[in-house]
Amino acid sequence: MKESNKNSNKDSNAKKPTSMEEIVSLAKRRGFVFPGSEIYGGLSGTWDWGPLGVALKNNVKNLWWRRFVENRDDMYGVDTAILMNRKVWEASGHVDGFSDPLTECKKCGSRWRADVVFETQLLPKSDKYPCPKCQNPLGTKEVILKNSRQFNMMFKTRIGVTENNSPSDSSDDSSVSYLRPETAQGMFMNFKNVTDSLHPKLPFGLAQIGKAFRNEIAPRDFIFRSREFEQMEIEYFIHKSEWKEHFEYWRKEMVQWIKELGLDSAKIHELDVPDRDRAHYSDKTVDFEYDFPFGRKELYGLAYRTDFDLKNHSQASGTDLSYFDEESKERFTPHVIEPTFGLDRTVLAILCESYSVDELGGEKREKSGKNDGQSGESVGEIGKEDKIEKRIFLKLPVDIAPVKVAVFPLLKNKPLLVEKAHEIFTEIKNTIPSAVFDDNGNIGKRYRRQDEIGTPHCVTVDFETLEDGTVTLRDRDSGGQKRVKINEVSRII
Amino acid sequence: MKESNKNSNKDSNAKKPTSMEEIVSLAKRRGFVFPGSEIYGGLSGTWDWGPLGVALKNNVKNLWWRRFVENRDDMYGVDTAILMNRKVWEASGHVDGFSDPLTECKKCGSRWRADVVFETQLLPKSDKYPCPKCQNPLGTKEVILKNSRQFNMMFKTRIGVTENNSPSDSSDDSSVSYLRPETAQGMFMNFKNVTDSLHPKLPFGLAQIGKAFRNEIAPRDFIFRSREFEQMEIEYFIHKSEWKEHFEYWRKEMVQWIKELGLDSAKIHELDVPDRDRAHYSDKTVDFEYDFPFGRKELYGLAYRTDFDLKNHSQASGTDLSYFDEESKERFTPHVIEPTFGLDRTVLAILCESYSVDELGGEKREKSGKNDGQSGESVGEIGKEDKIEKRIFLKLPVDIAPVKVAVFPLLKNKPLLVEKAHEIFTEIKNTIPSAVFDDNGNIGKRYRRQDEIGTPHCVTVDFETLEDGTVTLRDRDSGGQKRVKINEVSRII
Repeated sequence: MKESNKNSNKDSNAKKPTSMEEIVSLAKRRGFVFPGSEIYGGLSGTWDWGPLGVALKNNVKNLWWRRFVENRDDMYGVDTAILMNRKVWEASGHVDGFSDPLTECKKCGSRWRADVVFETQLLPKSDKYPCPKCQNPLGTKEVILKNSRQFNMMFKTRIGVTENNSPSDSSDDSSVSYLRPETAQGMFMNFKNVTDSLHPKLPFGLAQIGKAFRNEIAPRDFIFRSREFEQMEIEYFIHKSEWKEHFEYWRKEMVQWIKELGLDSAKIHELDVPDRDRAHYSDKTVDFEYDFPFGRKELYGLAYRTDFDLKNHSQASGTDLSYFDEESKERFTPHVIEPTFGLDRTVLAILCESYSVDELGGEKREKSGKNDGQSGESVGEIGKEDKIEKRIFLKLPVDIAPVKVAVFPLLKNKPLLVEKAHEIFTEIKNTIPSAVFDDNGNIGKRYRRQDEIGTPHCVTVDFETLEDGTVTLRDRDSGGQKRVKINEVSRII
Repeated sequence: MKESNKNSNKDSNAKKPTSMEEIVSLAKRRGFVFPGSEIYGGLSGTWDWGPLGVALKNNVKNLWWRRFVENRDDMYGVDTAILMNRKVWEASGHVDGFSDPLTECKKCGSRWRADVVFETQLLPKSDKYPCPKCQNPLGTKEVILKNSRQFNMMFKTRIGVTENNSPSDSSDDSSVSYLRPETAQGMFMNFKNVTDSLHPKLPFGLAQIGKAFRNEIAPRDFIFRSREFEQMEIEYFIHKSEWKEHFEYWRKEMVQWIKELGLDSAKIHELDVPDRDRAHYSDKTVDFEYDFPFGRKELYGLAYRTDFDLKNHSQASGTDLSYFDEESKERFTPHVIEPTFGLDRTVLAILCESYSVDELGGEKREKSGKNDGQSGESVGEIGKEDKIEKRIFLKLPVDIAPVKVAVFPLLKNKPLLVEKAHEIFTEIKNTIPSAVFDDNGNIGKRYRRQDEIGTPHCVTVDFETLEDGTVTLRDRDSGGQKRVKINEVSRII
């Protein structure tokens, strides 16, 4: 991917977007991601995946699952409940410690996450930060932090029979619990279940893809920081004496995975998280940061969780969570290496990385636009609005593209062309399930649509097809077209 | 599947289980399904999926998605947020109407869903039903229902900044919302997004697989009625004049899907739900019931939801949710046919259907058990505990089985055998990704393990393999073995 980026930059003057607006706009326009509950004014920090987004996301999930679960004999997939006994979150430290500092403006009453106030307003440390809403001075960094209260980010709910509309903590039949803020604890809960039923030998891992929920004070940056999101996570159980080797092994695995996604390694930065910034359970953490359009931000994390979780759950529950090594005859609590992959962030990075713009000269206009005899709307005409014609396309790796190939009849009112195109489509679909047939709008529109959803190849059936059995095969990245024999299409793709 | 059931019944005296305990026990023993939060005493109505369960569930999801989304050109997949604006649930009728009648025993204080009290205690209508816990008489059916209060089954939470540990409805920055009790509303929320971005022509559908949550008063029957569960659901948008044809079309599609799962059609019953029992939004509902070991219960539902949802959301949100038909030039609010498939219930029905017991005579004992020279533990010895030897196996359709083939070396302490088995395994794994290598325990143990997780074929590599390139291929359902050439194995499977 990195290589092809370079080539394409040279060939086609591809530009990178300067703003998230373009990506958010494409995501909505083409059915990747929509704001949640939109017709009711939305619900901040929630997003719905449209047809193209689901396909893209499923491709990423399947690649991850195949690579890290199915193709390994030391990994066990699980899918654990989002609702868990509250004791899980007490023992894990989340009830007491999973908080952000919350500050309130005494003048306008608005509430802010303290670090957001610092982040968005670059003032010298000695000066007073203003309220981002009303500009009332809130105080120095020290004062703001001192006056902040800790706001727990877990969503609370009550399970079991409660008085409707008047939840009170004194109700005896029901119990407070939380939506899980991470998938990890579900795996620690099942350490014993998996060792009892499948007897894996150390080292081994549990893996899970699933939703997690955090009541963010300030959800932002599209699907980067939302209140409901999906994680792909591994808890890898090891002997503590080997943690450094395993940590290094997983660091390399993560680098390799990032490469396979087609993310430019120049935009990836490994950050060895300093002591003061690490989570309470971690002895070492490396963050993989990516240069998003809105800045360099955490994409993935790799943490050495020690035996913090198993030890705490063992103590709190009274259940032995140790492991007996048959060979060394040693009984011990395993230590844990945890590679975490945010799924929504992965998709966002892929969208950012692949979003490309070609500014076309006259000679690079879609030639087939001239063939359009239907609506009178040619590519050239649309181009007028922009002065310079722009071609927007997603340079997605083939594995990840939601649609691998689109088949068109050149004109939709010519039954012979449509019939032939259907025939070719049916044949291609047999070997490539994610093929689509498209006869909506003129051919220029169809190319633009397929470009914007990142379809690597388009096959156009025209009158020559009927004569000599060739079709036009168009390449997404170069926009170039060539004629090929029908029976060669599947092979080439 | 039905056919092979019949054959097998004839061939091997396969018995059906009489109790759920056997299925729950196998599910736990083999890593399919574990109780949620188990080490903390559990959390009623939640379940965690273990490695085999995830694989089985994913196979069902993938079959469903391929059949109903990818292989159709009128279906659009979405994946919408679990957390939605509370106005969604006000307009849908769930805030007011999604309730069960809750009754309380004045003597012992226990709380019951009224229909559970009636269901579990078959008394004449005129008599008084006792409290299921303390046997104190609660009253007649009429009295119990009259004294019941409506208990809303949605899990409530607060989104946004709230006072920690003291949620109050007067907080202005946060808003009450609910975990979705059905995936359907997420699709209605995106009707406009999908028509705006992808311009589908009516009739078309939205499809979704995702979690839903209901605060059941009495979760029961294993994964049948739980508080957190997964749905596979379609909202199919039509012109109201055609609802009967579409309803009938989808009824047949559901019958066909049930067949493909291998469920015995004699155990499937279609129930035309009478007026008084239908949900508030439905003008006609057909339930597909299945004969579970605990009784005949709803597996799937097919509902004609009319234009109830789109009309209500359109009014409540002020957003036009109509559809303009280019051909007839008619603008109208589409009506909806809704086929709903409970994923957990699907898996449960598959487990119940496929759970089989062979009572083996001496001649049917695993012959290879005699070849075992390792632990001294032969099938015969283990069998002694049971007096009559029993072979438990899951007769899963090949598409659904979590493991398609297992490869064993006959003995694990013979390097030549192990090496050869690894070589054959690697080759098979290239064409069949869900193959496993297994050298744990003796050969009899391995067969039992693979039988219990429903692996259709086992390949055993022994000393003959080294001589003539043949292996033992064992069939799960008959337990029969035959020798075949290595290069024929993949073809046969």
